[in-house]
Amino acid sequence: MSDRLIYLPLGGAGEIGMNAYVYGHGKPGKERLILVDLGVTFPDMDTTPGVDLIMADTRWLIENRDRLEAIFITHAHEDHVGAIGRLWSELRVPVYARPFTAHHAQRKMEEAGQNPDEVIAVDPYPEVVEAGPFKVTFVPISHSIPESSGLVIDTPAGRVAHTGDFKIDPAPGVGEAFDEALWKEATGGRVRALMCDSTNVFSPKPGRSESELGSEITKLVSSAPHMVVATTFASNVARVKTLAQAGEAAGRSVCLLGRAMRRMIEASVATGVLEDFPKTVTPEDARDIPRESLMLIVTGSQGERRAATAQLSRGKYLGLEMHEGDMFLFSSKTIPGNERGVIRILNAFSEMGVDIVSDDDRYHVSGHANRPDLERMHRIVGAETVVPMHGEHRHLREHARLARENGYRSIVAVNGSMVDLTGPEPHVVEHVEADRVYLDGSVLIGALDGVVRDRIRMALNGHVIVNVILEDDEPLGEPWVEIMGLPETGGSNAPLVDVLEEDLNQFLMRAADKTLRDDDKLEEELRRIARKSTQDEIGKKPECTVVISRLDG
Amino acid sequence: MSDRLIYLPLGGAGEIGMNAYVYGHGKPGKERLILVDLGVTFPDMDTTPGVDLIMADTRWLIENRDRLEAIFITHAHEDHVGAIGRLWSELRVPVYARPFTAHHAQRKMEEAGQNPDEVIAVDPYPEVVEAGPFKVTFVPISHSIPESSGLVIDTPAGRVAHTGDFKIDPAPGVGEAFDEALWKEATGGRVRALMCDSTNVFSPKPGRSESELGSEITKLVSSAPHMVVATTFASNVARVKTLAQAGEAAGRSVCLLGRAMRRMIEASVATGVLEDFPKTVTPEDARDIPRESLMLIVTGSQGERRAATAQLSRGKYLGLEMHEGDMFLFSSKTIPGNERGVIRILNAFSEMGVDIVSDDDRYHVSGHANRPDLERMHRIVGAETVVPMHGEHRHLREHARLARENGYRSIVAVNGSMVDLTGPEPHVVEHVEADRVYLDGSVLIGALDGVVRDRIRMALNGHVIVNVILEDDEPLGEPWVEIMGLPETGGSNAPLVDVLEEDLNQFLMRAADKTLRDDDKLEEELRRIARKSTQDEIGKKPECTVVISRLDG
Repeated sequence: MSDRLIYLPLGGAGEIGMNAYVYGHGKPGKERLILVDLGVTFPDMDTTPGVDLIMADTRWLIENRDRLEAIFITHAHEDHVGAIGRLWSELRVPVYARPFTAHHAQRKMEEAGQNPDEVIAVDPYPEVVEAGPFKVTFVPISHSIPESSGLVIDTPAGRVAHTGDFKIDPAPGVGEAFDEALWKEATGGRVRALMCDSTNVFSPKPGRSESELGSEITKLVSSAPHMVVATTFASNVARVKTLAQAGEAAGRSVCLLGRAMRRMIEASVATGVLEDFPKTVTPEDARDIPRESLMLIVTGSQGERRAATAQLSRGKYLGLEMHEGDMFLFSSKTIPGNERGVIRILNAFSEMGVDIVSDDDRYHVSGHANRPDLERMHRIVGAETVVPMHGEHRHLREHARLARENGYRSIVAVNGSMVDLTGPEPHVVEHVEADRVYLDGSVLIGALDGVVRDRIRMALNGHVIVNVILEDDEPLGEPWVEIMGLPETGGSNAPLVDVLEEDLNQFLMRAADKTLRDDDKLEEELRRIARKSTQDEIGKKPECTVVISRLDG
Repeated sequence: MSDRLIYLPLGGAGEIGMNAYVYGHGKPGKERLILVDLGVTFPDMDTTPGVDLIMADTRWLIENRDRLEAIFITHAHEDHVGAIGRLWSELRVPVYARPFTAHHAQRKMEEAGQNPDEVIAVDPYPEVVEAGPFKVTFVPISHSIPESSGLVIDTPAGRVAHTGDFKIDPAPGVGEAFDEALWKEATGGRVRALMCDSTNVFSPKPGRSESELGSEITKLVSSAPHMVVATTFASNVARVKTLAQAGEAAGRSVCLLGRAMRRMIEASVATGVLEDFPKTVTPEDARDIPRESLMLIVTGSQGERRAATAQLSRGKYLGLEMHEGDMFLFSSKTIPGNERGVIRILNAFSEMGVDIVSDDDRYHVSGHANRPDLERMHRIVGAETVVPMHGEHRHLREHARLARENGYRSIVAVNGSMVDLTGPEPHVVEHVEADRVYLDGSVLIGALDGVVRDRIRMALNGHVIVNVILEDDEPLGEPWVEIMGLPETGGSNAPLVDVLEEDLNQFLMRAADKTLRDDDKLEEELRRIARKSTQDEIGKKPECTVVISRLDG
């Protein structure tokens, strides 16, 4: 069998988040591998209550880690770098990234108790990193965080290009402008496949440049009579700078609020990607500055409960608070699914009399390439095949359709689909298990372990606990019932626990000896009765835990 | 003291949903009262997991029910009529509505075991209903459900107008067109206050008419090569008719799927508001019709898990299923907060190869008045004061600002704010407790009872159950621990329950007699240890139920 070139998304192809893409080259089943990105995604109450972070399921990679050569990180967003600290110890290969990204990856490693030196900062194109049969070069690309890069990956079986997250921005403010000539040069020659960001495939107009925002935001901030507070993603360093410059131009002192915001700016200055950032004041100093001369730039644009925006919507934060007539600017767009949290904040500010500005056409631009920009990228690279990545299924499918319309081959490859890129047509050769892993407190659990399912069930149905003590297979006293998350009284107007205890006692009094001797049988019956009686009383079938204690003579 | 005219929203002023507005006339504290609307709102997993419906807190009204004269229902949407069955038995006054709305209210009464004859169908303006000092007339208004009405309410202290939900639509398809002359006539003379829908105050362009959709939808349906499925709100009878007519025009058989859809159309025909509805086929017959000649109109536009849309996204529903190349049209807009459920469905359809059309500018129009339409309504009625209702706080505040800009007095009155409309300026005279009531299974519980709070905590933190048996104040055997919704193993790689049982046993062995004799003290200590050990093992502090059983000699 001859060598082949494979592509295997483990995360990011079927959702927007937790990116993790494997490339392989070699004999089938013996390919040498590299991993591009290792990110997280965020939980929600609907499907993952209580979970801290969600990561790609890397079991396949761990099982094959003797074949893994290296990890490459395209940029420092959490959905690309966030899992590196937690999962590195199971992979143990060098991690390559450009300096700003490497800085963040190193911090993730430190936080997880790993050696940050495993992360190696490298220069971009034309510098090449060799990893087994792979020659990889980081090609600068514009996005909403500094030093974002696509990758050009050469193997003996041909070349692929991997855009990472990108937009086509000739003037991104901070970081490199999109350079079409550079991309043409770096991808020149035959390119087998372009793996391409799909996030904004449904946005029909060309994307707008970060540089279009400055004058509008400056106008807005200058017009505000009282304090101005603005929020955006902390990692959008260019936007933070645009906001700070608008504050400065309006004669305001600028204060950054929120740990992520301050860290990100410090890292940007330290790694040299950010210059000329306006002077800022500390929260302590800000308290003494007249409100009309102050501008806060704060974390929490997505309504995150612990971030500065949410804290300010609930009252004081670090001694600062919003007053009637202040302005709050969302220089951001709400990510689908985060609406409830953001709306809660909007209403809390409204109750304070704060004026909210949230026109995401005027005061925000997306960091991802829109449909015409995707088409332009397809043409620049001129690959034989376009493989959509970084999208939900609907984005991947639409992107594949777009590519085909324009004469490219394409394939929808979701997490776990191993695609052979070597033959005349890209095709799926294997399906690998690729679920999700949850960081739950300090423990990693599988999405299908049932732990979170049980939590959801308790949230929907409440929980009944039944305690029975038996001595020599005879009930000792009456059953004892506790409830959590259930109404105290139901249809019969007696306490629910009393009704349950009586019904369970009735059963125990009449139960056959055989039943009383059999733990499984007894538990099953007690559960059945407890659930049915609860259903009769309050119209809900609860989760039920039965504890049988036996005191034997 | 002289008579006064008061307005007291109990629901709908501070959220979009669960509308319930009280008007009163008489001596302060002795006003005779009427209630306008009695609706529900819907739970979400973030704040109300497991709850079935949410209603306004009517305690104040129940305490004052000897002063209540009647209930008026403006239209048949769930957020206006949905709670009438459940809450009527505590109020026991006549319910007035126009026939189509009355039909729905009667069904709600029947479902709750109440006498449907308490709901009285009345004719619109110029017919007047007298209720104590109130003279109330139903003034037809256009909205997204047939026979919607505003109210003109006369009292000895003056007149108020209550828009109910409305849009300004000269050609709503089904139901009465907006009639400016009629509204001028019905509200003519001095109007003290206009209570006005605020839903779309942030939509800057004039609203579009239902009649603009027909040709676009027909074009779309005619162009589809395979089966077409379309969803909208079941209660939007005009839209369902538009969709069905498009199907008919495209030579397709039309089938309605989903109980709410069929019920609503039947009620519309029965009460005479719907004529010329195309002939439909049953789901059984639909199975035998060639797919390219079939159009389904289905429930579930908001992603509701049990509705037809969600069922079809998961596979067969009533023997019908979607295939690759079929078209699914969302003739609807996703209500903020419902995005996650809708996106899940979009991706499930994408995996099936179904083509989704969800352009809410082209295939949907809102049922609520946009900003310029609100201004027009203010001018038509020409009231002294505009009181925004039917909106979150941010909508009410913006609407009040708009009214003031145009020279009207205005006031932001949220749920529980009793406003005196009689004086020179409307002002809040009293705050009434107005929380929320949850229908949980078959039981009504208060939002602040802690039941739902406990469910949320179990969902976030999991649940540990500790069982200890004592005999004569000495531990009998070792503690027994059960967990639900927690990882099975943590940091020490031993089962979590084993670790907890050991730590708890250690404590019991060393516990002072005084502690062992004191249930409260013992429970507190056991809980503290169980939570701390869980935190150490898995990094989460769980909810904890402690059961102490004492066997005394």
